[in-house]
Amino acid sequence: MKKLKRSARLVEMTQYLLARPHTLISLTAFADRYQSAKSSISEDLAIIKEVFEGEGIGDLHTLAGAAGGVRFIPKCRKDQALDKIKGICRQLEQPDRLLPGGYLYMTDLLGQPGLLQEVGQMFATAFADRDIDAIMTVETKGIPLAHATSLYLNVPVVIVRRDHKVTEGSVVSINYVSGSNKRIQTMSLARRALREQSRVLIIDDFMKAGGTVQGMIDLLNEFRAVVAGVGVFVESGEVDNEERLLHDYTSLARLTEVDLKSRHIAVTPGNFFKEEAQ
Amino acid sequence: MKKLKRSARLVEMTQYLLARPHTLISLTAFADRYQSAKSSISEDLAIIKEVFEGEGIGDLHTLAGAAGGVRFIPKCRKDQALDKIKGICRQLEQPDRLLPGGYLYMTDLLGQPGLLQEVGQMFATAFADRDIDAIMTVETKGIPLAHATSLYLNVPVVIVRRDHKVTEGSVVSINYVSGSNKRIQTMSLARRALREQSRVLIIDDFMKAGGTVQGMIDLLNEFRAVVAGVGVFVESGEVDNEERLLHDYTSLARLTEVDLKSRHIAVTPGNFFKEEAQ
Repeated sequence: MKKLKRSARLVEMTQYLLARPHTLISLTAFADRYQSAKSSISEDLAIIKEVFEGEGIGDLHTLAGAAGGVRFIPKCRKDQALDKIKGICRQLEQPDRLLPGGYLYMTDLLGQPGLLQEVGQMFATAFADRDIDAIMTVETKGIPLAHATSLYLNVPVVIVRRDHKVTEGSVVSINYVSGSNKRIQTMSLARRALREQSRVLIIDDFMKAGGTVQGMIDLLNEFRAVVAGVGVFVESGEVDNEERLLHDYTSLARLTEVDLKSRHIAVTPGNFFKEEAQ
Repeated sequence: MKKLKRSARLVEMTQYLLARPHTLISLTAFADRYQSAKSSISEDLAIIKEVFEGEGIGDLHTLAGAAGGVRFIPKCRKDQALDKIKGICRQLEQPDRLLPGGYLYMTDLLGQPGLLQEVGQMFATAFADRDIDAIMTVETKGIPLAHATSLYLNVPVVIVRRDHKVTEGSVVSINYVSGSNKRIQTMSLARRALREQSRVLIIDDFMKAGGTVQGMIDLLNEFRAVVAGVGVFVESGEVDNEERLLHDYTSLARLTEVDLKSRHIAVTPGNFFKEEAQ
């Protein structure tokens, strides 16, 4: 890369850091990349750090010493996130989302890149301090959420299939009971998709009693992998605590009321916002 | 937002533009956001433009006049993209990817956020000048590619399902014949997922004769929507021209040889790189 002026270097460093979250970049690597003294690089990083932390883009962790460097940890500010989730809740409350059986149509929302980035940032903030090797989800609607989160945590996504596909090689399958309709279903994961001992963050779009998530946890056991966290976009508040299979999870929104007759839906911020929302 | 110094403003503007591709931002909006004169904003944009265009991040289109503004168009440089795709081809050629039936295991690659960003940038570059309202793909493996592309084109993703799900509402279904194995299959899309007259970019992970993509085109016709482009990650070179159902598409890689006995796989850059690769 040709030598840049400070102003141009700040632009380049900003995009370089944003594209490499949760990655340690040494001061030496930056000094070489920009043919600049480490002292200049440190000054640049101080400016970037102030903007990133002030504007709710994320933290810039600097490590001092010979092996020193910098790591960008994407984090949204809780107050900004709460504003955004309230907007999402209003969208989820639109009466025409109500489908037969009390299901909520939200496929359109899960296709919008802007919303996915916001939700990905929230999950990445919730689990920023966990040690995570991979994100797991089950097809189909959890996939965009898992990938949006993976961009900010910089770990790969592993997709559990609801059927066995020929293009996956040997797979591990388990049966599970979906808590909401009590049907026995199958989910499977390619043997080579996940290393043993992996620490896995589970992400899904909707959780009622938690049967599907519990199925993924059982599947992780088959791989001798460990649950590093569970994040759900929308949880159903219509489940009493006894029925709930799972208690340790982070939800971004909570479906508190569905009235099929009046077509009234109520959605509030989830437990991620617990202190702020009360 | 509090008033920032120029250096901090450059950092903030860079992240602001990167997060809003293909979006016109008026100079007035920037001047208000940063409480700065339009002349200062213009100078900042000139610096950002030079770095973005020089380093292969994208173009910054500036519109002069009273309604003037700036639009960030993510674009990768073809030489850099060719280097990256060659690295991806080497990974695809690993002999242990070969599955029974001559299929190629590539689910692991489609889970890696770094690779997906590179591929998304390539597709966004290939289709940067088309007028696109939505990206369509079919579950499951096309989904990460479609979403990666949507981040850079800033349009929503629409997912065609291989089965009818209760949580989608009324759907339109069609039958199609997958060109490679001649089986009749069904694909469906929720009626409300796509507006009539939409201009749609089709993205998929793998194409042999093109039966699945042709199915999606037939489905688009049912919605009175229009194909704005077709992008496939890997195309099979083992199809002769007569067998091929589709001729107007962009491929990033091409599977030119699969020898089950010797377990030899050859993958070369696709037609996106045609001039450069020859």
